[in-house]
Amino acid sequence: MTLLSDFGTADGFVGAMKGVILSRASDAQIVDLTHDIPPQDVWAGAWALREAAGVFPKGAIHLAVVDPGVGTKRRALLLYGNDQFFVGPDNGLLSLAVGPDAKGWLLEKREFFGREVSSTFHGRDIFASVAGHLAAGVKAQDFGSMVQDWVKLIEDPVVCKGNEIEGRVVHVDRFGNLITNVDKKDAKKETQWSVQIGDYICGPIRSTYGDVEEGEWVAYVGSSGKIEIAIRNGDAAKALVLNTHAGKKAVWKYKVKLCSSGS
Amino acid sequence: MTLLSDFGTADGFVGAMKGVILSRASDAQIVDLTHDIPPQDVWAGAWALREAAGVFPKGAIHLAVVDPGVGTKRRALLLYGNDQFFVGPDNGLLSLAVGPDAKGWLLEKREFFGREVSSTFHGRDIFASVAGHLAAGVKAQDFGSMVQDWVKLIEDPVVCKGNEIEGRVVHVDRFGNLITNVDKKDAKKETQWSVQIGDYICGPIRSTYGDVEEGEWVAYVGSSGKIEIAIRNGDAAKALVLNTHAGKKAVWKYKVKLCSSGS
Amino acid sequence: MTLLSDFGTADGFVGAMKGVILSRASDAQIVDLTHDIPPQDVWAGAWALREAAGVFPKGAIHLAVVDPGVGTKRRALLLYGNDQFFVGPDNGLLSLAVGPDAKGWLLEKREFFGREVSSTFHGRDIFASVAGHLAAGVKAQDFGSMVQDWVKLIEDPVVCKGNEIEGRVVHVDRFGNLITNVDKKDAKKETQWSVQIGDYICGPIRSTYGDVEEGEWVAYVGSSGKIEIAIRNGDAAKALVLNTHAGKKAVWKYKVKLCSSGS
Repeated sequence: MTLLSDFGTADGFVGAMKGVILSRASDAQIVDLTHDIPPQDVWAGAWALREAAGVFPKGAIHLAVVDPGVGTKRRALLLYGNDQFFVGPDNGLLSLAVGPDAKGWLLEKREFFGREVSSTFHGRDIFASVAGHLAAGVKAQDFGSMVQDWVKLIEDPVVCKGNEIEGRVVHVDRFGNLITNVDKKDAKKETQWSVQIGDYICGPIRSTYGDVEEGEWVAYVGSSGKIEIAIRNGDAAKALVLNTHAGKKAVWKYKVKLCSSGS
Repeated sequence: MTLLSDFGTADGFVGAMKGVILSRASDAQIVDLTHDIPPQDVWAGAWALREAAGVFPKGAIHLAVVDPGVGTKRRALLLYGNDQFFVGPDNGLLSLAVGPDAKGWLLEKREFFGREVSSTFHGRDIFASVAGHLAAGVKAQDFGSMVQDWVKLIEDPVVCKGNEIEGRVVHVDRFGNLITNVDKKDAKKETQWSVQIGDYICGPIRSTYGDVEEGEWVAYVGSSGKIEIAIRNGDAAKALVLNTHAGKKAVWKYKVKLCSSGS
Repeated sequence: MTLLSDFGTADGFVGAMKGVILSRASDAQIVDLTHDIPPQDVWAGAWALREAAGVFPKGAIHLAVVDPGVGTKRRALLLYGNDQFFVGPDNGLLSLAVGPDAKGWLLEKREFFGREVSSTFHGRDIFASVAGHLAAGVKAQDFGSMVQDWVKLIEDPVVCKGNEIEGRVVHVDRFGNLITNVDKKDAKKETQWSVQIGDYICGPIRSTYGDVEEGEWVAYVGSSGKIEIAIRNGDAAKALVLNTHAGKKAVWKYKVKLCSSGS
């Protein structure tokens, strides 16, 4: 079972969720994906969940909580897609990871919730409790009725026109590397592309950082199959917007262009 | 078994404690509550431990180390209360979580410590070692003699007089929400309260964030049964003291008032 | 099995490595040493790995990734030393922990890598995959040919001349304590030493923080057997360079002197 949230690790919220899970499934193996999703940033959570979930074994249970609507009428979900289970709020958080052919159930049966359900910590009182019961063998259909119209995040499309591909930065990682939404399939190998972001020309799509000198801009196919932009042993986000902290937000959705140099 | 400390996660201190535990109880299931307690802040540690411990199964072992007196004559403790074990220094850290009817033992028997005991890292050399032996089946009374006069933290009382309840902020969470020491039992439902902090009027006690508009102040019963104050999808601590980082300290013990609007 | 990296915990990189490991060895017990090594700081990683690895049981597998040369021709290693296994890049990262009598193998057999090997995330695609197979029972020699000339970090020597020992700060911990490379064996007990750093006289080597007043400088034998310098319940790094964040870098390699007060 994995956990992902925007709870940080300073408050004991995550510990409480783990306690609930282990109370219901004492030999569950719990792996933290991350708890440092920016507060209430459903998009960042959805993105991170999709990136990490894929490598887990079939039948893995992913518990994800980025939940600005906690206590309102937003629904609670169990989804099954890509051979894995996803538990969390119905606000789009699970929608990128689960794939297009997923099945879904509402979390309706209070017998699988905690004894008391607070109005602000469904991570503990509903989602962790359900995930624990699921790990302990309760069937998906026992939690509630089937559902299909869960909230689905729509990603910015990559625009391909003529000699140009226009995409966006969709994630900035810890190193300041810029992950775009342009897939390696969009940018075909046989074409010689020139990658541009803001005023920076990053040259062709290379194999790895080591293909340029230290401190130079480089574009390459990242570990998720998307085009990434970095500065070798530097911080591209910082360079782009001068200040990283403001930068992480300012850089998000930044436009990136690939131009085919063939005329 | 759970771990809580002020060690942070950058130095490998926590990893060392886990290594010691697993050397003594190879199939121990270790859960991090938090290692981001502010350095040497025994109160913050005690508070977080109480909040998180309750949800763990009976017989869980909680290892807690916030230990400014390490290497001095402060004693080392094993406590049993609320059906759970607590291992840590005798400086009040365990005293909130353990409840009023706990039993205690001093950690005296060197055979259950690490081979060498440093004067600065009892987390590894005494507490983790003892916790590992405890998990492996050693009985509480084997670690040392019984004790009753361990250090107990005394919390600020909630003052109820006439139409007014006066409490304090006892924790600021990652979202900037202000957790007070006013219990939902203090603020009876049938009374219509008006909650105030500093110059801000937060209105009555609501069910959840969603009962107010984005950016508005809101008071509600939090996940620990205490009155909490927040700004919906905002940061109440920051708003209260302008700067969050200074704020976390400045906000602690801030007075909060509930006035019964019935004349 | 333990994990150490400079990946931070915000991006899900660590979660992805864990997923790969558990896909190959479903009952592996995974412990995070730290993921907060400063980006690309091989020295800091090597130091932390050595400090933490020692307490783990025989046969433990340590997976370490601080890998500025990912995607270049730097080799990938499995080392065995001090009764434990180490998996990571051949850039010196493993060399301090593994001890002088280690054996080594290159990671050459692609059958033990992930299905696709990205050029930027060998932590997931090579190292975690190999570590998972190793945990599942694959023999060291099956991963590739033996090797002896892996990159070895050379530490600054401690200089002992006459009445003086000169060492350096090699690590600054979360509390601002300064860990030096001077071993307790270098500074013999029967000699009365006076410890100095910058303009500060820290007095003799004491047993613990509690031997001085709050706010005073103190030198003592730390938990790793090295001389450490601290301010009791204060932050020595900050005091030395005024600003901690710049300080952590500025303080590293700072000279420390021990003078024998016997003439």
